[in-house]
Amino acid sequence: MVDKKLSGAGLRGQSAGETKLCTVGKSGSGLTYCGYDVSDLAENATFEEVAYLLFNGELPTFDQLETYKAELKPMRDLPKALKEVLQRIPADAHPMDVMRTGASFLGNLEPEVDFSQQNKAANRLLAAFPAIMTYWYRYSHEGVEIDCVSDEDTIGGHFLRLLTGKTPSELHRRVIDVSLILYAEHEFNASTFTARVCASTLSDMYSCITAAIGSLRGPLHGGANEAAMEMIQKFSSPADAKTQMAGMLERKEKIMGFGHAVYRESDPRNVIIKAWSEQLSKEFGDSSLYDISVACEEYMWDTKKLFCNADFFHASAYHFMGIPTKLFTPIFVCSRLTGWAAHVMEQRDNNRIIRPSADYIGSEPRKVTPISER
Amino acid sequence: MVDKKLSGAGLRGQSAGETKLCTVGKSGSGLTYCGYDVSDLAENATFEEVAYLLFNGELPTFDQLETYKAELKPMRDLPKALKEVLQRIPADAHPMDVMRTGASFLGNLEPEVDFSQQNKAANRLLAAFPAIMTYWYRYSHEGVEIDCVSDEDTIGGHFLRLLTGKTPSELHRRVIDVSLILYAEHEFNASTFTARVCASTLSDMYSCITAAIGSLRGPLHGGANEAAMEMIQKFSSPADAKTQMAGMLERKEKIMGFGHAVYRESDPRNVIIKAWSEQLSKEFGDSSLYDISVACEEYMWDTKKLFCNADFFHASAYHFMGIPTKLFTPIFVCSRLTGWAAHVMEQRDNNRIIRPSADYIGSEPRKVTPISER
Repeated sequence: MVDKKLSGAGLRGQSAGETKLCTVGKSGSGLTYCGYDVSDLAENATFEEVAYLLFNGELPTFDQLETYKAELKPMRDLPKALKEVLQRIPADAHPMDVMRTGASFLGNLEPEVDFSQQNKAANRLLAAFPAIMTYWYRYSHEGVEIDCVSDEDTIGGHFLRLLTGKTPSELHRRVIDVSLILYAEHEFNASTFTARVCASTLSDMYSCITAAIGSLRGPLHGGANEAAMEMIQKFSSPADAKTQMAGMLERKEKIMGFGHAVYRESDPRNVIIKAWSEQLSKEFGDSSLYDISVACEEYMWDTKKLFCNADFFHASAYHFMGIPTKLFTPIFVCSRLTGWAAHVMEQRDNNRIIRPSADYIGSEPRKVTPISER
Repeated sequence: MVDKKLSGAGLRGQSAGETKLCTVGKSGSGLTYCGYDVSDLAENATFEEVAYLLFNGELPTFDQLETYKAELKPMRDLPKALKEVLQRIPADAHPMDVMRTGASFLGNLEPEVDFSQQNKAANRLLAAFPAIMTYWYRYSHEGVEIDCVSDEDTIGGHFLRLLTGKTPSELHRRVIDVSLILYAEHEFNASTFTARVCASTLSDMYSCITAAIGSLRGPLHGGANEAAMEMIQKFSSPADAKTQMAGMLERKEKIMGFGHAVYRESDPRNVIIKAWSEQLSKEFGDSSLYDISVACEEYMWDTKKLFCNADFFHASAYHFMGIPTKLFTPIFVCSRLTGWAAHVMEQRDNNRIIRPSADYIGSEPRKVTPISER
């Protein structure tokens, strides 16, 4: 068998399978989930509707949505053993290591025994991730053992409630919901592809999600919104932002939150989260971080013709909601889990183990020299 | 950009990158690590030498090997917090979930902060996996809190010592070492490819290994030796094996441990482990399981022209050494970790994020209907 040589590393532009879940950049800038434009979903649906859509292929009716939310709510609390594990993770651990370990450990206690339980396993992680993140965060950083249950109606509201201990404003509830919609799904990105390779061995849902978290942890994948936050916090004003960015470009430093591997003209998610960030800045009572972000956007477009991606205005938006920077990527997990799990289900539906070949560039055949003669 | 359509699902026969580490089936049946035939390594090297080879590209000198083993030995023990996590995993958990969680949790306590620590992280997992597996196993199954330290010279001997609490025989030490060599590396198999996709986001070593364990857990990948064990234990004699296998073939039941996705003529690892299984059967004092295995091999070849792969005689070999069947795949982890980690290092050396495309077969563009009208 002669292996076909692919043009370009990283399988770029190579189809690795079929999907019904998503298109990215099909008309140059669009993003659709199951045929729906992400901006339409962000305006006219909630995150639970989007999760239902990805898992079932259709948006729920009112009754289906109520049933689904009623199913998720009792799944929010964590088993005692998982809390005890989270207590043993130090405050200086990488928050994505916490998410990865939380998902993996839960798989020991509540395994997906066969694929008929795949929705249950995905929903369990969907409901439990906010508590996994916030229980560890508040225990390790504040010494507080939080109650992992809330009467918040949505996953987004529930997360904010556990994080802050306060009832979130309607605006905050809406923005976190929109954010979870925007990050939910993005075709064969590296973490989703990781989940599909894992799923192709017919492994369980927890293994696939744990693997995907590990990939999202990489600085080339998740984490751009955290990096954007760290940058804009260093700028004292819009004018200072432009001056400092000029220096960064001159020193060829990487500026996170701009451009995209697939989108060529713009990231359709940016305009949405940017508008919400502006609204949040008004509620926050200090718009300087938003104004600085706008200055960055203008500067990068004017000098480099680079557009903001989904991550850039997420930084200020999350900050205005009081979310610590180190939790930005774990929120990404809470959202993208829906896409990952949907891809796992799709891979299982028409599976063949994903096992490519490699081009060998190593040593010619050689003989082992006895260790005494090496 | 027009995506190239690949022929065949699962990227079969498609090159997804370059490697210096391994060739599989290049001459129809061969397996080489860094140019050395696996049978040469299994006869003339030890597992620690093979680990060193995969991590460094060359076999160690005597002094280098001594230094390497002296580095690994103090890394065998587990942190108290990890032991407490393992204590919280029930006896009926999937042993691969335990390995996955152990690797993931250790990443919280001893993170790979930057890639200069990649060998340290890989060596830590290499030294600690025997204790992760056996501490959980003996605590949950026997109520024993084992000492995770031993003065055994090799990783293989250390594993047997922790598992049984007894000093292993020279034969057992040698066979577990050979087994760890045989399973160490196998090019772009699904778990290794999972590790490389994860590594391509520049994620950390623990994430990559955790992800790979999740893939190896799948029944299409790891676990064939466990399935082979379960089958041969049901056969009362060589004659009974042939009768029962005929029935299984007639009922089109899957028979594990035969054939291979890449090898066409034979699996080069089979003849090696088969010879050791025969020797073990003599020490064991009852060769029936070996005789049954030979009958299975003959029957599958005579009727189906299917050859034994590496897994089949591993079943009886492990059994003769007193290893519980449920730990067969975790031993695979202890071995293949070396290949996974070597591939992670290689991916990092010449990285591009692995992000393929997909063929969209889903819904046409559609508009969100308000939920009240659905």
